[in-house]
Amino acid sequence: MRTQLELPESSNPRIVIIGGGFGGIQLAKELKDKDFQVVLIDRNNFHTFQPLLYQVATGGLEPDSIAFPIRKIFQGASNIYFRMAEVLNIDTTNNTIDTSIGEINFRYLVIATGSTNNFFGMADIEKNGMPLKSLKEALDLRSLLLQNLEKALNDPSQREACLNFVVVGGGPTGVEVAGALGELTKHVLPNDYQELNQNEVNIYLIESNKMILSSMAPQSSAKALKFLNKLGVKVLLDTRLISYDGEKVLLSSGTTILASTLIWSAGVQGQIINGIPINAIQKGNRFIVNRFNQIEGFTNIFAIGDVAIMKEEKYPNGHPMVAPVALQQATLLARNILSVTLSNSWKQFSYRDKGSMATIGRNKAVAEVGLIRFQGAFAWLVWMIVHLMSLVGFRNRLVVLINWIWNYFSYDRAIRIIVRPFVKRQS
Amino acid sequence: MRTQLELPESSNPRIVIIGGGFGGIQLAKELKDKDFQVVLIDRNNFHTFQPLLYQVATGGLEPDSIAFPIRKIFQGASNIYFRMAEVLNIDTTNNTIDTSIGEINFRYLVIATGSTNNFFGMADIEKNGMPLKSLKEALDLRSLLLQNLEKALNDPSQREACLNFVVVGGGPTGVEVAGALGELTKHVLPNDYQELNQNEVNIYLIESNKMILSSMAPQSSAKALKFLNKLGVKVLLDTRLISYDGEKVLLSSGTTILASTLIWSAGVQGQIINGIPINAIQKGNRFIVNRFNQIEGFTNIFAIGDVAIMKEEKYPNGHPMVAPVALQQATLLARNILSVTLSNSWKQFSYRDKGSMATIGRNKAVAEVGLIRFQGAFAWLVWMIVHLMSLVGFRNRLVVLINWIWNYFSYDRAIRIIVRPFVKRQS
Repeated sequence: MRTQLELPESSNPRIVIIGGGFGGIQLAKELKDKDFQVVLIDRNNFHTFQPLLYQVATGGLEPDSIAFPIRKIFQGASNIYFRMAEVLNIDTTNNTIDTSIGEINFRYLVIATGSTNNFFGMADIEKNGMPLKSLKEALDLRSLLLQNLEKALNDPSQREACLNFVVVGGGPTGVEVAGALGELTKHVLPNDYQELNQNEVNIYLIESNKMILSSMAPQSSAKALKFLNKLGVKVLLDTRLISYDGEKVLLSSGTTILASTLIWSAGVQGQIINGIPINAIQKGNRFIVNRFNQIEGFTNIFAIGDVAIMKEEKYPNGHPMVAPVALQQATLLARNILSVTLSNSWKQFSYRDKGSMATIGRNKAVAEVGLIRFQGAFAWLVWMIVHLMSLVGFRNRLVVLINWIWNYFSYDRAIRIIVRPFVKRQS
Repeated sequence: MRTQLELPESSNPRIVIIGGGFGGIQLAKELKDKDFQVVLIDRNNFHTFQPLLYQVATGGLEPDSIAFPIRKIFQGASNIYFRMAEVLNIDTTNNTIDTSIGEINFRYLVIATGSTNNFFGMADIEKNGMPLKSLKEALDLRSLLLQNLEKALNDPSQREACLNFVVVGGGPTGVEVAGALGELTKHVLPNDYQELNQNEVNIYLIESNKMILSSMAPQSSAKALKFLNKLGVKVLLDTRLISYDGEKVLLSSGTTILASTLIWSAGVQGQIINGIPINAIQKGNRFIVNRFNQIEGFTNIFAIGDVAIMKEEKYPNGHPMVAPVALQQATLLARNILSVTLSNSWKQFSYRDKGSMATIGRNKAVAEVGLIRFQGAFAWLVWMIVHLMSLVGFRNRLVVLINWIWNYFSYDRAIRIIVRPFVKRQS
């Protein structure tokens, strides 16, 4: 028999939440001091504010100020227990899960594991591309960017490849990281690397669609494209990545680019866990849930956020994989579970889309709230305020704010240090 | 023939400085815009403010705010070239050095490589102990401390070892890290780990001398001991570490402590480079230099700071291995080299000791300036001001200041995140 997880006895039913992202944290918060024993499991001991990872990767923010210790969020919550562990398997027959630190049973299970990178089976991209979904990946990318600039100085044969940066995927992450690289090249490079010629640096953004930010309105997309061009980013639309061996980027247009850095932001998939029957999993590794977030075939096992796919009239192909969906689903699920004695009163989920935005650079952002669209400095300001207020913890907000003010007035990205050099993955 | 380092042609003589610590940076600064081509080489692309590493290890400061990009220090200095590289060998016959990125010749060479950990040949300590001399080591220690707290919850058989923390060496680093651990246990643990009993945590400070902070006056040492006791640190004087296999700490007193964490701050040695004749190296791996910092047997090869040992009347066994010695030697060496045409005017180095201090916890520090000694809250304030002003860069100072204010009022150490779990070294 497997070791059981050490937890205090409780007469209250146990809810296990897997994942400390936006959804999992929100759900646990809503269940604070209620008549449930809540066990929150994550492989990290911190919550990551993913929307700002690209700023960590480009030296604008400290990694520590977009991460927040999960235990700190739940200080004083006597019914919430955090465990840092990897979940290995779900046993739906016995209502238990198996983790790296032992087994635990549950009355309710909520899977809020979010999404992970999807390389669509391309082993060369998985090996040589740089994803940007975790703090570790952001730090690896920061190291590699800086290492390549250093290498460009020392190795003339590698200079071209070291100064070409290819970003694949024109969604918000790709657009934001390409814009941030553009600013780095424009403002920091000339001061730090006087021996390098700014014109030798090329930033490419590869997008398979005919437009970037395809989830936004055409006019937002067009404006973002204009902003990127202003920052010197070469946007290649209607172009797909064919292969990348770590040196040579081959595109569907037949073009080849020599590049030591390829940032992969063209695909995500649900981060599923073993044990849920295959018929409840849709292409893209997302658990099929009903409007109560119950996974197909179960009444006490739920999925919320990116790892869940729920169809409603307005979203026949499921909701976008964004934080607000996870937050709203978590809030409703908590209410439904809390009203568990009156099972007929469960409410169906409907997504309230509050809008979307993306930032390209200083004074350069695009935003949509309902039918209102705005771009430029005002959108940028709104973007900053929304992100600042969404960060967990006052200290983090303060440190981020100071860094942003600093970056704005100094045109600097001060945190360009290589704490741990990135070593290319071996096959 | 080896590749030559890529550098612009210059009619000025070339000074190569190895090491971007206090000494190397200071020297390069003094040579800014002078008639020399200055090449500064470091294996990292940043300068580390070592005196605050222990605060990074204990979650009080972001790693990025005590590091500063070397290139940023020398922005606009047209005669200073930074190269990130490992120095492999010095060829004193041909006045060249060999590095990981190629060969470079010099007119003057200054070795400012500082010090590294000294395990005195004890392989078990080198393998299992946690040193605290670099940013990477500080982050590894932070991860291990937090991992052990998590493990203590999950593995009853490991609980005792996970909650015992052994610090070896009662110098400033050992005292400071033991004090910081005491505060973490007292203020953060009860909130974050309600399932752990604060009394189960033991912090030991092992010192082979009969007093801690033996470089300071007896009354400072006694006060520091009292402060440590107040924070619950068990100080074992007149005790040596015999062995540590990663689980069991054996002491010279015969006592055995089960501990998953052993912090090694009991020994440093110079970080020497191959190629300097053995007769110019003293026990403890320091280059023997004269009062002009010239290494024995050379006129154009110098060593400054921790890696140098210079004897003057007041310091027959050499200077203490502290930042002010490196800074003062760098300043004088720059002046001497700049007056090179009037070789008789070189000035001999004399160390001006401005005092020393160590901090144990909030409102708890000891300081000595000349014959004046003070302890407690005022010493702590002075300690903070001195360290804040010594940090490089306004942004870093501001972020550190905010964190300190935050820590002071919240009794918190907010940055307790495990970005990269520490994996014990394999033999």
